Amino acid sequence: MTTAVQTTTTPAFRSEHDLLGDRDVPADAYWGVHTLRAIENFPITGQPLASNANLVKGLAAVKLAAARTNRELGLLDAERADAIEQACQDILGGKLHEQFMVDVIQGGAGTSSNMNANEVIANRALEILGHPKGDYARLHPNDHVNLSQSTNDVYPTAVNLATIFSVQGLLAALQELEVAFAEKGQEFRTVVKMGRTQLQDAVPMTLGQEFGGYAVTVGEDRARLAESQLLIHEINLGATAIGTGLNAPVGYAATACRHLGQITGLPLVTAVDLIEATQDVGAFVHLSGVLKRVAVKLSKICNDLRLLSSGPRAGLGEINLPAVQSGSSIMPGKINPVIPEVVSQVAYEVIGNDVTVTMAAEAGQLQLNAFEPIIVHSLHKSISHLEAACRTLTSRCIRGITANTEHLRLTVEQSIGLVTALNPHIGYSSATAIAQEALASGKGVAELVLEHGLLTSKQLDELLRPERLANLSK
Amino acid sequence: MTTAVQTTTTPAFRSEHDLLGDRDVPADAYWGVHTLRAIENFPITGQPLASNANLVKGLAAVKLAAARTNRELGLLDAERADAIEQACQDILGGKLHEQFMVDVIQGGAGTSSNMNANEVIANRALEILGHPKGDYARLHPNDHVNLSQSTNDVYPTAVNLATIFSVQGLLAALQELEVAFAEKGQEFRTVVKMGRTQLQDAVPMTLGQEFGGYAVTVGEDRARLAESQLLIHEINLGATAIGTGLNAPVGYAATACRHLGQITGLPLVTAVDLIEATQDVGAFVHLSGVLKRVAVKLSKICNDLRLLSSGPRAGLGEINLPAVQSGSSIMPGKINPVIPEVVSQVAYEVIGNDVTVTMAAEAGQLQLNAFEPIIVHSLHKSISHLEAACRTLTSRCIRGITANTEHLRLTVEQSIGLVTALNPHIGYSSATAIAQEALASGKGVAELVLEHGLLTSKQLDELLRPERLANLSK
Amino acid sequence: MTTAVQTTTTPAFRSEHDLLGDRDVPADAYWGVHTLRAIENFPITGQPLASNANLVKGLAAVKLAAARTNRELGLLDAERADAIEQACQDILGGKLHEQFMVDVIQGGAGTSSNMNANEVIANRALEILGHPKGDYARLHPNDHVNLSQSTNDVYPTAVNLATIFSVQGLLAALQELEVAFAEKGQEFRTVVKMGRTQLQDAVPMTLGQEFGGYAVTVGEDRARLAESQLLIHEINLGATAIGTGLNAPVGYAATACRHLGQITGLPLVTAVDLIEATQDVGAFVHLSGVLKRVAVKLSKICNDLRLLSSGPRAGLGEINLPAVQSGSSIMPGKINPVIPEVVSQVAYEVIGNDVTVTMAAEAGQLQLNAFEPIIVHSLHKSISHLEAACRTLTSRCIRGITANTEHLRLTVEQSIGLVTALNPHIGYSSATAIAQEALASGKGVAELVLEHGLLTSKQLDELLRPERLANLSK
Amino acid sequence: MTTAVQTTTTPAFRSEHDLLGDRDVPADAYWGVHTLRAIENFPITGQPLASNANLVKGLAAVKLAAARTNRELGLLDAERADAIEQACQDILGGKLHEQFMVDVIQGGAGTSSNMNANEVIANRALEILGHPKGDYARLHPNDHVNLSQSTNDVYPTAVNLATIFSVQGLLAALQELEVAFAEKGQEFRTVVKMGRTQLQDAVPMTLGQEFGGYAVTVGEDRARLAESQLLIHEINLGATAIGTGLNAPVGYAATACRHLGQITGLPLVTAVDLIEATQDVGAFVHLSGVLKRVAVKLSKICNDLRLLSSGPRAGLGEINLPAVQSGSSIMPGKINPVIPEVVSQVAYEVIGNDVTVTMAAEAGQLQLNAFEPIIVHSLHKSISHLEAACRTLTSRCIRGITANTEHLRLTVEQSIGLVTALNPHIGYSSATAIAQEALASGKGVAELVLEHGLLTSKQLDELLRPERLANLSK
Repeated sequence: MTTAVQTTTTPAFRSEHDLLGDRDVPADAYWGVHTLRAIENFPITGQPLASNANLVKGLAAVKLAAARTNRELGLLDAERADAIEQACQDILGGKLHEQFMVDVIQGGAGTSSNMNANEVIANRALEILGHPKGDYARLHPNDHVNLSQSTNDVYPTAVNLATIFSVQGLLAALQELEVAFAEKGQEFRTVVKMGRTQLQDAVPMTLGQEFGGYAVTVGEDRARLAESQLLIHEINLGATAIGTGLNAPVGYAATACRHLGQITGLPLVTAVDLIEATQDVGAFVHLSGVLKRVAVKLSKICNDLRLLSSGPRAGLGEINLPAVQSGSSIMPGKINPVIPEVVSQVAYEVIGNDVTVTMAAEAGQLQLNAFEPIIVHSLHKSISHLEAACRTLTSRCIRGITANTEHLRLTVEQSIGLVTALNPHIGYSSATAIAQEALASGKGVAELVLEHGLLTSKQLDELLRPERLANLSK
Repeated sequence: MTTAVQTTTTPAFRSEHDLLGDRDVPADAYWGVHTLRAIENFPITGQPLASNANLVKGLAAVKLAAARTNRELGLLDAERADAIEQACQDILGGKLHEQFMVDVIQGGAGTSSNMNANEVIANRALEILGHPKGDYARLHPNDHVNLSQSTNDVYPTAVNLATIFSVQGLLAALQELEVAFAEKGQEFRTVVKMGRTQLQDAVPMTLGQEFGGYAVTVGEDRARLAESQLLIHEINLGATAIGTGLNAPVGYAATACRHLGQITGLPLVTAVDLIEATQDVGAFVHLSGVLKRVAVKLSKICNDLRLLSSGPRAGLGEINLPAVQSGSSIMPGKINPVIPEVVSQVAYEVIGNDVTVTMAAEAGQLQLNAFEPIIVHSLHKSISHLEAACRTLTSRCIRGITANTEHLRLTVEQSIGLVTALNPHIGYSSATAIAQEALASGKGVAELVLEHGLLTSKQLDELLRPERLANLSK
Repeated sequence: MTTAVQTTTTPAFRSEHDLLGDRDVPADAYWGVHTLRAIENFPITGQPLASNANLVKGLAAVKLAAARTNRELGLLDAERADAIEQACQDILGGKLHEQFMVDVIQGGAGTSSNMNANEVIANRALEILGHPKGDYARLHPNDHVNLSQSTNDVYPTAVNLATIFSVQGLLAALQELEVAFAEKGQEFRTVVKMGRTQLQDAVPMTLGQEFGGYAVTVGEDRARLAESQLLIHEINLGATAIGTGLNAPVGYAATACRHLGQITGLPLVTAVDLIEATQDVGAFVHLSGVLKRVAVKLSKICNDLRLLSSGPRAGLGEINLPAVQSGSSIMPGKINPVIPEVVSQVAYEVIGNDVTVTMAAEAGQLQLNAFEPIIVHSLHKSISHLEAACRTLTSRCIRGITANTEHLRLTVEQSIGLVTALNPHIGYSSATAIAQEALASGKGVAELVLEHGLLTSKQLDELLRPERLANLSK
Repeated sequence: MTTAVQTTTTPAFRSEHDLLGDRDVPADAYWGVHTLRAIENFPITGQPLASNANLVKGLAAVKLAAARTNRELGLLDAERADAIEQACQDILGGKLHEQFMVDVIQGGAGTSSNMNANEVIANRALEILGHPKGDYARLHPNDHVNLSQSTNDVYPTAVNLATIFSVQGLLAALQELEVAFAEKGQEFRTVVKMGRTQLQDAVPMTLGQEFGGYAVTVGEDRARLAESQLLIHEINLGATAIGTGLNAPVGYAATACRHLGQITGLPLVTAVDLIEATQDVGAFVHLSGVLKRVAVKLSKICNDLRLLSSGPRAGLGEINLPAVQSGSSIMPGKINPVIPEVVSQVAYEVIGNDVTVTMAAEAGQLQLNAFEPIIVHSLHKSISHLEAACRTLTSRCIRGITANTEHLRLTVEQSIGLVTALNPHIGYSSATAIAQEALASGKGVAELVLEHGLLTSKQLDELLRPERLANLSK
């Protein structure tokens, strides 16, 4: 019949029913009336769920695991199970994502996201079985796709998966960045320069030590991030509405966790206390805090890069960032540190997102946190933007950095801080006198030491060797 | 030659040149090589400038004002001025927005946004003049479209305009919400209920007073927002690179401000100290702080609404929010307060955005704040999402709220707090005794007062009149 | 009996009674059992209310106004009124502050602060009347001192006063700072230097313009702060428990507001909607947002000062901050920018406090915000620390700043950005060629222009006049 | 001469010298001129270092380890080493803390804190040796107490120790709280009640499950906190000024770490990359993020407690918090949830502190973070206030909570959500019909099921057994 209708005049709409009454949905839509209500209720950002591909895949993975579990426990017949599983596989393969249309900021604690998934999967399954969309008597979004589940266990579990998928990308990008810094550390290992504390000249070091330090910092952040994402391998699937598992069959949680682990290849575990796990978003607050840590460190490094490359004439002028675009129409030849600038802006966004996550987490009440969608949206932005920022930083900035070696050596030679290294050899009071004369006269410390006959030129050469100054032998 | 080529086989690309060399851009693109570089440098969010229509219009308005000023001051010939002005009008009319492709999060202090605008306007103007795109010798993005300007005065001014445009929408939405609350306040003016402090029963009031209070709160926020957006009517157009106005002709700032005021219909003024104005983003921090205030108040109200409508059996059950979608698949008939929930989530986002704005503002250095793009992006999200949240709150929630009048009256009658109102008539010690007996026995205060013969039924009726209890006569 | 005991051996304790039973309080304590309970319940920070002298004075002022109003409306006899008023005047005069012992972070929505005030005033009044402390049958903390009041109108009103008092100090400190910057702006008006955008050399300006800009920024912040504190001149005294004014006599609110205005000399007004005013903390959120704005701007300026004074050899070295303490034991002669550093730290604290205020404000429920004590504590810290930071910044840093005038002139002369000013005279393409040659060769722009015979020495002198470069004539 | 003067008339002051000149310090002060300068430069909060006893002890522990190391490496003679070690032991034992007078918010990256420690220890050591205070020729704050050290390794190491000490207290308080919740969970294990999601009645559970969940939540937070404080067992002692270890003898870092480990009993390790470790405050950002997590969870629980205890008549009335103080003067018998209220306020403070820590961390530049004092101050407040909040919550609230068992059972029996449990037995459509009739008629689900003859009374009794409803058997 459907085919016949389609070959004559395809109706533009089909009618669907929910508790509030009947509504027309576009005939070719895989989503249904619940999604329609949500689209109308939440016209907030214009960004649909589809913009978070990992969340869509996370939902599909959970639905696939549930279908396999329901089949295994004898709750779902093979025909429907096959169709539902195939529909989920389609989505995991990247298909039908555009059907996930509910706004990323939504009320309802994720119910609309779950409903959107149930409807799309049901209609795709119906299509696979050769039935028209909306023929829910044959295969129902709730009775079959959502069988043994509640939004309150499906959605948090899908969010965990989505977040793990996203974090994997960020971890890879951080590793790339770490390597790039380490390579520059090696490249610049003999470039001696003045270290600075509180923006004041301190004592000598090498540019290699500076970049090597950045590599270590990024590596530590990567390690912390890897640890903290382990926390979200604990899932609450099987908790149903509030964690008591009401209406889920015996053995459901364990079986579903096993299937989901196989589907995703992740070492997932079921939370010991499902009541607690269903209301708790502590792991997201934790993860967001670690993302903030990553953001803080990246921004600090980028601030340093902008400072070290300031100039070209009236700045520190220690390093050169690769030119990636013109800086100014009014000032010929001006090149700006646009890549570090964009990274810091992403960092500020991540730090703001952390406050959003915090507020949403604190607002949870009793057996559920109704504000998980904004937590998910904020985390997704933080992770994906940080990944993008790291990748552009690595490829368009760090790898192309060059050093102004001669200028750097000159700043060491002219430095007053140099006198600190001579301390044990000419005495603290002589050192102080030299420092004061240097500051007043504008002369170099080495020049004055020679003038005053305190050390020989050969002695000075030895004491001021880059390797010694930067304590490279230690 | 270009024309000849176009009439035979249209090439897919045209070549453009900048300081870094030659690059192909799509032949039909209105944007050029600077935009291309920026697209490649900032692949952060996937959201192009076009997603902020008010910013695109703000840029077009500034370029239009600049063209008129340059023509008036004799710097731009009529032919080019006409073409540029027409191009700007096209964009103001909603055309070519899809050509604004640079990511909303970008380095370069807005240079890429300005460049994107210069290129689109130049190529549209060339098209109007009958020349091929990219024929910049005839009309140049920088020499003509950007004439007498710098990113550092164009971009902040355009951002001010964009923000004013957006705030106007939010103000209208807040007014709608205020009216809706006031109407409910009027509707519920005789519905007596228990007021609560610290979630404990306090003394009686009316539901009308409660909703009337929300109207006042929203009205105050609207007033504060209207005041704070006046701050961004001060612009720095004419400052050029750092506020000294270098290379802008005498009289440029005043004339451009006059033209921009005429174009937008806004009472714009030029900042007295352009050096200060060019580096200062204080007005954005201020505005963001006021948006946060609005967010805090909206979320507080929505929290109240969720609390008052909790139930249906084991909650406060004072009011009913309109059902706008099914609540749960597993729990038949469950309806959730999804609209207040989405509003609070937007509030949390706005509060997070405020931290982002704060960090970006604090990071400004010397003569410019390089992080204005993330400030703009954050403000745009805050304002537009708040507007959307207010509109869905008004239309899908507030207007449909009903009261459980009988239940509310019962809670007053059964209340122990009622005894406070009898205090001056039966004495404090009698009142305390009644309160203790009520708490212990579960009986009502009125019942006990009658039992003890402290007041007559008629006296009680008078003392417990809703108008008296809620001090409506005051 | 009490008298007899006192003349023989003074007991260490007196017994007081509340709903929970009897408790001993130190015989010489002006505070009583309610304060004792609160001290025991809230051992959080160790900082007593007394640490916020303005809040103690605010409470005393409200109690004084209430006593005068109760007397005027015939509710309080002259003897008790006289004694209570004298006790309040004592506290306003700085006495008995050490008796305000409840922790600054406390539950109970300020009830314990109000109770502490009621008890101290009652016992001081009893003392004035010649009665022993604790003899509440004669003069009662609640029945007389708290007459016609509730914590829910007393406490917010006292907090408003305290905040206004504190803000006055901050406004004065900001004005001092503004003047100091303006004086430096005048002193440095002929000191030409390179302006910088995005930390890259831009075009010339004067150091006077830079410091003048800081004066303008601080002046604007001061104006915004002055405006925003006007919002807290609106009080809710007379609202009693929830804003219905239950049990307060007719005319109370207006009379009390008049008295309080006379006592404080402030143009106070009663809120139009007392229900709304009693639950609303929007004005504090607003004020905190403006304090954050002030903090952001101060920190930005201090960051600039640290940057401009970086060196002495390997930094920008543009200005010298006065040395106020030794910098390092290990590095002889090192002087650090410790004053700007402490100011930025205060700014970070204020920004954090703003988040605390925001969360506490959002957490308000129904007819009251129970979390006002942390709002008050946060605001008090923000305001008083900002005042202290401004004063040390003005007196120990700004006033002693000197400029490295010759070095600054040299950076302009050597600058490539200088070529921007020659643009209209030698043409854009010549300018670009000069810029590129300068960058490659390390030579100065002026030197190259002379070498190439593009301009005469006299022309160059004119074009590079400081007044012209910095567009001082504009 | 000094001795002579002391035996005749003790002068009030002694003169000390630093780079800025001579200054008088009180003759009996253990602190000296560097401390004096800092007191004058940083009059911010009025809170001295002494208010953070753990930080004072941390500094003493580091100085003790340094003295032992310097002695072991032959740099310090036995007489001076003995005296310095004894002075450090005195401070570790709680003496002389009042001599640590520099403000907790200070510029100089901790230099003034280190100087304050050096001076106090030197003068105490001089006293031990029988010399007058200030006789630095015999034992010098810098040359001997600070030997082989820099503020930049001493201060961060001392801060790590202080933070570890403080966290130990918080961990203990969290454990106490966890136990209290677990005990209530056990006590309430048979008290059946309605679970709620999104503040709407959901499905039955037990109050024991609810409190058991809180125990689990607190336990998880404790575990995360214990993990994250391990990060600060990595120290940078031996890094000296910037991490190159300049002027520290070979073997210093390892030996000092060994001594410090023995002194504190902590498994401390030296950072692998001292350059990185000296500039990095990532571990503090991390720890602050975890403290924020703890705060968020505690506040959520306290919000729940306030909600569940709302009433006594017009609220949820599920549990009773112990009365710990009177609630209101105007409302007889009112008791408020003041303990949960104070805990949430501490949580908001901690969340604000986290933003402060974040900003200060992001502001670090190059080889050092100059803003560590505000990080330390913020962390100290967060940890110590959280500990105090947990302890008052445990002892004054949780342990005394009682349940309104009958009321709770009634809400389950009257609940519509009950129908979910009957779903598999009477069918979904019958269940929906029953739900709708219950909502319309106000009748109970069980009553209607019996009326309609859908189940027998015996069947209903079985299906509605508490153990079954709450799935206690699972």
